[in-house]
Amino acid sequence: NQNEIYVSDGSRFDPLVVVELTSDTKEEAISWLLSRIRDTQQNGGAELQVEQLEQLGPGVSAQEKENPNLFLVGATRQRLLSGAEDLGLFKEFHDGSMRGFTCANKHNFKDFQGDGDSFLSMAECQYIIKHELDTLRARDETHVPGHQQVKLYPGKSIIRRLLSKGILIQVFPLHQKEELKRLSFSWYQKVKLSFQPLDDIRHYYGEGQALYFGFLEYFTFALVPMALIGVPYYLFDWEDYDKYVLLAAFNLVWCTVILELWKRCSASLAYRWGTLSRKKAFEEPRPGFHGVLGFNPVTGREEPLYPNTKRQLRVYLVSLPFVLLCLYLSLYIMMIYFLMEGWVLSVHDEEPTFWTGILCFIPSVIYAVVIEVMNLIYRYAAEFLTEWGEYAASSCQHRLFSPQFNFFNCFASLFYIAFVMHDMVMLRQSLATLLITSQILNQFMEAFLPFWLQRRRNKKMIRKVQIRKTLEDKELPLADQVRLEADMSTYLGTFDDYLELFLLFGYVSLFSCVYPLAAVLVVLNNITEVYSDAFKMCRVFKRPFSDPAANIGVWQLAFEAMSVIAVVTNCSLIGMSPQVKAYFPESDMQLILWTVAVEHGLLAFKFILTFLIPDVPKHIQINLSRLEFESLEALKKKVKPGRFNQSRSTLTVNRANSSSNE
Amino acid sequence: NQNEIYVSDGSRFDPLVVVELTSDTKEEAISWLLSRIRDTQQNGGAELQVEQLEQLGPGVSAQEKENPNLFLVGATRQRLLSGAEDLGLFKEFHDGSMRGFTCANKHNFKDFQGDGDSFLSMAECQYIIKHELDTLRARDETHVPGHQQVKLYPGKSIIRRLLSKGILIQVFPLHQKEELKRLSFSWYQKVKLSFQPLDDIRHYYGEGQALYFGFLEYFTFALVPMALIGVPYYLFDWEDYDKYVLLAAFNLVWCTVILELWKRCSASLAYRWGTLSRKKAFEEPRPGFHGVLGFNPVTGREEPLYPNTKRQLRVYLVSLPFVLLCLYLSLYIMMIYFLMEGWVLSVHDEEPTFWTGILCFIPSVIYAVVIEVMNLIYRYAAEFLTEWGEYAASSCQHRLFSPQFNFFNCFASLFYIAFVMHDMVMLRQSLATLLITSQILNQFMEAFLPFWLQRRRNKKMIRKVQIRKTLEDKELPLADQVRLEADMSTYLGTFDDYLELFLLFGYVSLFSCVYPLAAVLVVLNNITEVYSDAFKMCRVFKRPFSDPAANIGVWQLAFEAMSVIAVVTNCSLIGMSPQVKAYFPESDMQLILWTVAVEHGLLAFKFILTFLIPDVPKHIQINLSRLEFESLEALKKKVKPGRFNQSRSTLTVNRANSSSNE
Repeated sequence: NQNEIYVSDGSRFDPLVVVELTSDTKEEAISWLLSRIRDTQQNGGAELQVEQLEQLGPGVSAQEKENPNLFLVGATRQRLLSGAEDLGLFKEFHDGSMRGFTCANKHNFKDFQGDGDSFLSMAECQYIIKHELDTLRARDETHVPGHQQVKLYPGKSIIRRLLSKGILIQVFPLHQKEELKRLSFSWYQKVKLSFQPLDDIRHYYGEGQALYFGFLEYFTFALVPMALIGVPYYLFDWEDYDKYVLLAAFNLVWCTVILELWKRCSASLAYRWGTLSRKKAFEEPRPGFHGVLGFNPVTGREEPLYPNTKRQLRVYLVSLPFVLLCLYLSLYIMMIYFLMEGWVLSVHDEEPTFWTGILCFIPSVIYAVVIEVMNLIYRYAAEFLTEWGEYAASSCQHRLFSPQFNFFNCFASLFYIAFVMHDMVMLRQSLATLLITSQILNQFMEAFLPFWLQRRRNKKMIRKVQIRKTLEDKELPLADQVRLEADMSTYLGTFDDYLELFLLFGYVSLFSCVYPLAAVLVVLNNITEVYSDAFKMCRVFKRPFSDPAANIGVWQLAFEAMSVIAVVTNCSLIGMSPQVKAYFPESDMQLILWTVAVEHGLLAFKFILTFLIPDVPKHIQINLSRLEFESLEALKKKVKPGRFNQSRSTLTVNRANSSSNE
Repeated sequence: NQNEIYVSDGSRFDPLVVVELTSDTKEEAISWLLSRIRDTQQNGGAELQVEQLEQLGPGVSAQEKENPNLFLVGATRQRLLSGAEDLGLFKEFHDGSMRGFTCANKHNFKDFQGDGDSFLSMAECQYIIKHELDTLRARDETHVPGHQQVKLYPGKSIIRRLLSKGILIQVFPLHQKEELKRLSFSWYQKVKLSFQPLDDIRHYYGEGQALYFGFLEYFTFALVPMALIGVPYYLFDWEDYDKYVLLAAFNLVWCTVILELWKRCSASLAYRWGTLSRKKAFEEPRPGFHGVLGFNPVTGREEPLYPNTKRQLRVYLVSLPFVLLCLYLSLYIMMIYFLMEGWVLSVHDEEPTFWTGILCFIPSVIYAVVIEVMNLIYRYAAEFLTEWGEYAASSCQHRLFSPQFNFFNCFASLFYIAFVMHDMVMLRQSLATLLITSQILNQFMEAFLPFWLQRRRNKKMIRKVQIRKTLEDKELPLADQVRLEADMSTYLGTFDDYLELFLLFGYVSLFSCVYPLAAVLVVLNNITEVYSDAFKMCRVFKRPFSDPAANIGVWQLAFEAMSVIAVVTNCSLIGMSPQVKAYFPESDMQLILWTVAVEHGLLAFKFILTFLIPDVPKHIQINLSRLEFESLEALKKKVKPGRFNQSRSTLTVNRANSSSNE
């Protein structure tokens, strides 16, 4: 690790995580916090190393007004290993299976060599330190020294409290320049036809991030057959009944198959990375929990408990009216869009020229932009609501209704055009405009806009740094690196990235039989998305803490729900098409009954398929069962005398012995 | 245990299981088998006690031609406890949680008192002995002494081989007269308004049986609200649109809710009985497996393996044509029924008298009887196919298509009447006749007919026994008890009982809006069913081996599938009713679209409900997680030196120690 330095007292110190306090923090608060971090675990401390940034050597760009309260946190190797054990990290055992890491057993793990220096990746070390900082809890009801107004409650996380009270600005992990350079080269800087370096991404960013990029890649490849089949339909304007039905049927079955196979893929990846076996249920609750200290019923560890139903009620009471209001607004804007569309069409019909032809696209483009803006506003409003309502239980609580709202916002107009206006030409045009506009907007907004803004902000410092670099050909000093990174934007997790894919999947699957080219557009978008997302992760944002995810979570469900809705929409679209209607000239009833029958058949087929394809590959299932079996065997072997009937049981053991000797 | 006796050498012997060989078995084969059963486990034996029935004292009814080759198998208490450990039986620990039993830890189990005499129920002991007998395997390729034609293959179960070759007639567990008397009194002999003694049933017959009776009871109570609501509809001939829709909607939602809640109920029962935690995956395969000896990938135990895909292919290739043939036959008979029905109606219409009115019911009754006969024939044919095809992998393999066939057989005519003939009056009449006839037939055929047949067969012996009983007022000697029980019919498992409930559920749910009285009839039937099933278990059949089931298995899925189909049928029935049609006088299309929309809404609601209700109650989920957590912790603590790098790891441990001392 090139960041490694020696501090004043001669001991080795490897900075992993940065803690930034406001510049007006009182001296006694700082020294109290540092001592809590340094204190041994027996005394309720975190037993970590922490150093002030300034004392580690000045940066190039030393300025008067810079915040002096930047601290670097590290830990001894031993502490990190015992932290890994506490967290229950799973590592590859010498026999190839995945096992929960323990210090006592460390030499039986495959990658544990020598004294275990490179056993834990830096992302893992940072995750451990974050966990240890987060679980640093106040024991007594007191206040932060020097800050009378910041009360501490027993069992509450100190770091969280300082964050919410504004004393602590941020906690973030440091980048590793060398490794980042290597990763970004193999990831997005060389133009190549190869898979993404998922294992490297996981090593650097953690499992949650790697699973997202794995899903993005999988999703792109999975859409290629749909794109290939869709192209001739678009090129040759195939609009026959049987061909369309074939395309739609293929798409629907294909969507089901790829979603099912992804579960297996994801299980393979997560097993390899050790997160599949590591159960979420055992984890301590997030440190933001507001509750009294109690015992976790599963692990028996002391930790804050929170009444679950009360929290949920609060979420629903605050969120529901807000979501309904947003939906109303969204509907209102949709109506304005249709008015504009009607007006433009009437202008075009009166006097059709080239310019009015272009004008026809304008309302759709404007509407697409407004939709994106609405999505953004919803995001920020929801986040504000969360802060205000202070139901911080889980940081993604406010995102409860986000996919639903976005779904409604994006697709309401398309549903209206398809099923109320019955205008297939307009549907196709509107779909294409929405899809293309939102793709372009998204990629611009999520990667390049923040990058450009950040560069503008840090212009001076970067120029200084570059001058020095070219003059002295030296690496950037640690102090400058830390300050540069502290200034980068914060990555808010994979939620928005998944949401984007979810909406794209909607454009492809919901109306696939009307606009077969959608799959092609989404494939193209995804290819650039890989690059822009990779660029974003490496250059635009602070390094995020790793998130040991075992699957893509609720998104699996969301995608599956979308594919069920897609069956319904596609069947209705085909049923409504004039070509199909021509097959049933005498009665509409026959047509509808057939459509409904086919739709039910497809739905039944989907569920049977879901049922038939096992979620976890056989060999991984065997490994998981073996782990469970061996655990149960180990528990059986662990003979412990009963806690309450110790004397009695010793007695009966003796009796049993004597009776068996008879 | 009143069966306990002392054998010639003075040791205590508690007969648990009876093994019956044919009377012409060679002497050397018998002594070889007995020695294998008695041999120690190290030598590959079963280490059980076994005695010939004749040597334990003569019966009252000693006859010349009686089979002398009846053997009683028992085991020492220690052997049973170690068998329970091998099987991984779960028992209540002193802290109230369920733990896998181990001999070393036995005194920490709640019910383990003294030397553990009553710790295992007799059903468990018998299950252990059955398991030990079944896993008695041939080591070398040889033949049974004295029977050249009976080859043995390494890894194959000896008992199974002897059974399939006809040398072994049967293996069955003994009843306990006293306990059976107590159980049958509290179960069905006293007329009372109380729940069934599920724990006692479980204690005597095992978990599989108890879960069936639990489900039967639950199902009966769950149908009571539907029955109560259905009665006024029938009495007052309510045929308004809104009332019918209400009834149907209530029924559909109710069906979903009761099926979901049953999962929770079943999980509670299975947790209490220790089968929920005990994983099926760890179990050794059934002893009938034809395959080479290999290692179970999960437990690492040596046991026969079988190529899975090959077996499945064979099943499908043989079963599918057979099932299709049966379906064709079933359709053919249905057509004959409709011809009869038409003829009878024409007779009635020509000259309607009281007698022709009764004649109208005759075809339905005949058809119902034929359906039951068809079901029986299908059963026997499938079983014959299994024997012949020798795909004995799992004894219920041949039942793969049984529910589907029975479903088709029972409901095809009703579907035809409802959706092709659109004749609601006939549907109602046909449904009622089928339901009532099949209920009466079933109860008669499954309990009272076998009982009567058996009594006739054993007339002489029973008379002798009764004379002796009244004369000497003594208990029946063991020899007579064993011979009487050996002559009873064999209970083939809960499959047919569940199948009956499944079909009843179909009658109730599929057409509930047409014939609301169905629920009442089924409730009445279920009440008598409890008594007849209990009587059947206690008096008609041999005691079955217990089956440590954790849930009702595939039947849960079958019932859920039925409730989904019920949504579709009920919505279509309501859509087709003239009252609803009157609401949409101008267009059928509107009507159908509304029906489809409502149906989709109901289906979506069902799935959301299924998703929202957790399958396992919270406190049991916590207990299961805690067990898993503690197991993983125990596995972590178990430090074992690596198998392949033992020397290296010792070296590195030393190095690590010295470096940490620095």
